[in-house]
Amino acid sequence: MKMSARNHFAGTVAEVKKGQVMAQVTVDIGGGHRIKSAIFSESVDDLALKPGDKVTAVIKSTDVIIFKD
Amino acid sequence: MKMSARNHFAGTVAEVKKGQVMAQVTVDIGGGHRIKSAIFSESVDDLALKPGDKVTAVIKSTDVIIFKD
Amino acid sequence: MKMSARNHFAGTVAEVKKGQVMAQVTVDIGGGHRIKSAIFSESVDDLALKPGDKVTAVIKSTDVIIFKD
Amino acid sequence: MKMSARNHFAGTVAEVKKGQVMAQVTVDIGGGHRIKSAIFSESVDDLALKPGDKVTAVIKSTDVIIFKD
Amino acid sequence: MKMSARNHFAGTVAEVKKGQVMAQVTVDIGGGHRIKSAIFSESVDDLALKPGDKVTAVIKSTDVIIFKD
Amino acid sequence: MKMSARNHFAGTVAEVKKGQVMAQVTVDIGGGHRIKSAIFSESVDDLALKPGDKVTAVIKSTDVIIFKD
Repeated sequence: MKMSARNHFAGTVAEVKKGQVMAQVTVDIGGGHRIKSAIFSESVDDLALKPGDKVTAVIKSTDVIIFKD
Repeated sequence: MKMSARNHFAGTVAEVKKGQVMAQVTVDIGGGHRIKSAIFSESVDDLALKPGDKVTAVIKSTDVIIFKD
Repeated sequence: MKMSARNHFAGTVAEVKKGQVMAQVTVDIGGGHRIKSAIFSESVDDLALKPGDKVTAVIKSTDVIIFKD
Repeated sequence: MKMSARNHFAGTVAEVKKGQVMAQVTVDIGGGHRIKSAIFSESVDDLALKPGDKVTAVIKSTDVIIFKD
Repeated sequence: MKMSARNHFAGTVAEVKKGQVMAQVTVDIGGGHRIKSAIFSESVDDLALKPGDKVTAVIKSTDVIIFKD
Repeated sequence: MKMSARNHFAGTVAEVKKGQVMAQVTVDIGGGHRIKSAIFSESVDDLALKPGDKVTAVIKSTDVIIFKD
């Protein structure tokens, strides 16, 4: 399966913080990089997300801002 | 300066493709990872973005989707 | 494979309009509903998107606005 | 009134789950389709959203990802 | 009609730059503030957007980043 | 430092409502305008956000919807 979204980062779930409605998931993608994601707690349950899981973080290019000094 | 957005990736501009209104900017963030961004061509001009520039790609956590096999 | 994004609509590509950088893809999801997507023209090429293709449109719940009369 | 956002789905609120800050709203748009939205609990109160309400879910095309097998 | 999105700015269209697929619309919201929007050129046509038009720019709170020195 | 995002609004934090995972931050940008933002409670802590703080709200143009009567 292919997707239009251009940014895919394979990694390992480092932390899952679940609230009533929303959850914060931290993914270690190696090279000292971590990606944080705000998703429904329902999605955490549905994917049974827990530390150590192999996952992929996906980001649409329209959501990337560029900064330059 | 600090920002609420949690995902910051320092890198080097690898490619800039400018259209009439929108542009596609590719940033090499090391470790074999590239991030693509869709921004205004006006922003490319305003930041004078060109290959080799040191930049930071920033992504809000609400824009990150998690996939699991 | 499962994903955190909650909104998936299976459908058929109805129209692809490709610009220099960005493209407009229209997907017929049945029931009189159409979904339009703004993606890179590069993604159209990479997925070889054309009218008649079976695709799935995916939307993160944080991107859905609710209106009420 | 017209809006630039291209994706509008009229439906009926099926479920509202309110947390301290964020809420999860599920809208039945017919044809077996449901759309989930993450909004402020404040917005749920402001719109007095409850199951059975007639609403419209709106999505900007820049937020739609296309998948193809 | 009420909407869940919390940020609404009434203003006047200052400039419309139309590309093949995407357009850049600048809205003057007074007080020296301008808001720029990236929408489909199709939407510009559908709303017949032109300088001088009275419009409202709407932004979902999940899309707002906070910076602090 | 310059950024590709086109919409920057300097203002003063008017209110911070912190939940377990997400927070709602209201920024007064003058001229009777307020901007609300949904960010991680972790970000509120990291930036030590509190009423009275001078901040800037930043919005990417791809996230702005235009309405016209």
